[in-house]
Amino acid sequence: MKLATLKNGTRDGRLVVVSKSLAWCADASHIAPTLQAALDDWHTAAPKLELLAQDLEHEAIPMMRFHERDALSPLPRAYQWVDGSAYVNHVELVRKARGAEMPETFWTDPLVYQGGSDDFTPPRDAIIVPDENFGIDFEGEVAVITGDVPMGTTEADAHRHIKLVMLVNDVSLRNLIPNELGKGFGFYQSKPATTFSPVAVTPDELGDWWNDGKLNRALVSTLNGQPFGKPDAGIDMTFSFAKLIEHVTKTRRLGAGAIVGSGTVSNKEGDSPGRPVSEGGLGYSCIAEIRMIETINSGKPATPFMSFGDTIRIEALDDSGHSIFGAIEQTVQPLTPSALGGQ
Amino acid sequence: MKLATLKNGTRDGRLVVVSKSLAWCADASHIAPTLQAALDDWHTAAPKLELLAQDLEHEAIPMMRFHERDALSPLPRAYQWVDGSAYVNHVELVRKARGAEMPETFWTDPLVYQGGSDDFTPPRDAIIVPDENFGIDFEGEVAVITGDVPMGTTEADAHRHIKLVMLVNDVSLRNLIPNELGKGFGFYQSKPATTFSPVAVTPDELGDWWNDGKLNRALVSTLNGQPFGKPDAGIDMTFSFAKLIEHVTKTRRLGAGAIVGSGTVSNKEGDSPGRPVSEGGLGYSCIAEIRMIETINSGKPATPFMSFGDTIRIEALDDSGHSIFGAIEQTVQPLTPSALGGQ
Repeated sequence: MKLATLKNGTRDGRLVVVSKSLAWCADASHIAPTLQAALDDWHTAAPKLELLAQDLEHEAIPMMRFHERDALSPLPRAYQWVDGSAYVNHVELVRKARGAEMPETFWTDPLVYQGGSDDFTPPRDAIIVPDENFGIDFEGEVAVITGDVPMGTTEADAHRHIKLVMLVNDVSLRNLIPNELGKGFGFYQSKPATTFSPVAVTPDELGDWWNDGKLNRALVSTLNGQPFGKPDAGIDMTFSFAKLIEHVTKTRRLGAGAIVGSGTVSNKEGDSPGRPVSEGGLGYSCIAEIRMIETINSGKPATPFMSFGDTIRIEALDDSGHSIFGAIEQTVQPLTPSALGGQ
Repeated sequence: MKLATLKNGTRDGRLVVVSKSLAWCADASHIAPTLQAALDDWHTAAPKLELLAQDLEHEAIPMMRFHERDALSPLPRAYQWVDGSAYVNHVELVRKARGAEMPETFWTDPLVYQGGSDDFTPPRDAIIVPDENFGIDFEGEVAVITGDVPMGTTEADAHRHIKLVMLVNDVSLRNLIPNELGKGFGFYQSKPATTFSPVAVTPDELGDWWNDGKLNRALVSTLNGQPFGKPDAGIDMTFSFAKLIEHVTKTRRLGAGAIVGSGTVSNKEGDSPGRPVSEGGLGYSCIAEIRMIETINSGKPATPFMSFGDTIRIEALDDSGHSIFGAIEQTVQPLTPSALGGQ
């Protein structure tokens, strides 16, 4: 089934089930008022939501048009957001660009960072940044939402805790990263509010596209209307979501509604780090990566980071070109008194 | 006023107001079912809770005994937990012990880390750790809970966003830190579930003890019944909570119920890094710090990290020795199938 959270003036929105086509939705608030409430009692809520989704497909219940612009992030705020760097190709490229060797352990010991989860931007709302010179970048990723996951969960047992799959724009402020990582305690200011796709989808609904804890579809990024990347999220993912869950439950449990991210999706091309779409390659899921390629090839980056007014679109399509999760589509805007709506 | 969250079998517990003496409490669920719900609508809820607290002091309403062991952390789970290192003395000591210089900017640019907030341990429940050799340590800290704080908030404007004050045990696994920080993305496995004091207190209730965004009381740590530390949280705090809030809202807003921590409370003694309580000093708020002193003085640490069965108690007292926030009191226990209660 497919679930979404509609804007209704409250912090946590209103839960709806969405048709496979993304054209229609049906109110689910009689089952659970919010997605978090459904996840808190998933064992009870999920079967009821599944039945509602079937009724929606059969047009057997009252339904309304689903507009992606009306959606909040499926969890508008969450209790846990931990993001991996599962596409080690991406990490290796970053290091290469600055002439640093990547430790061999990066291929066996997952790298994750603890994200902030109190304010996720709706998938069609602006990326608000106070300064255009912060090095504004998108990062196209996949993420899963878990149920309650015990401490010490193994990779083999982790699969059953994955309840929903969605896409991510893990907005990053590249020019703030060196100073922040230099202080040694990880990202904070350099990772502003994250955005998730309008729709979250159960693994069973994804069928063959979900395999061994990976999403086997291309992640399509479009920058200002131009194709930017289409790497396959199922390829070159060194650590599956199950492996990431094993890693993040080594010393703590995860509460229902925890979000675990894949890190920037990135494919190699044979032994090379791949080529831009404009050169016939699969392209990239963030600007930093193409800048690294440019730096490796010609000594300096050519593609600028995002400016005010630039728009990034991130989605995954089925074989006939229909959107699976809906599209994240965001324009960068400056911080103004009215930009954050009512603050 | 003083607020607490009682265990009631649900994830978020039940909101109560607590008497100044911590002896009594009164149900507040008719005003807001949970502390998060109260914070989500603080403008409406706070005045009603204040009236209830006054009625409780006057014994004008039904009341019941308040037992700290019945309390969850005031927010049993939260959407944001960001922890500073405001006592730069602590940071300087850590560096000194390993022979590293601390950058001068650490005195002007706050250091924070993004914590995980989906699972806070109740203040009298065990610290569950899967391996005794992880270097189990407590960290005694102060924290504030904010309302909605806009992006770009200044230090001067930040004070009014501080709604509640509490104490923290920021449990740390010291032996996992070097590898994790070495990977460059900050803490994750090395920071397991955090614990907060049984009671959260409004700044106005603290009176003179709350001044300029700092708590002017000693933070008393007792390890296995022996005095371990009593540094004053109002002294040597280089960055006030208002300054920390300015820092953490540079590129994002904070959602209501965000928790901002001070980092380990630590006092200098003149120009020296202080002495253990056993030598007549103010002691320390974590084991790592006394081990650093021992390393500086004699080449190697003497005090071991915590073992299974060890108990840490953290509290702050008024002039007559009564607890202000209630006490965090936790015993370290191994991970067993039943240790995490029903997982």
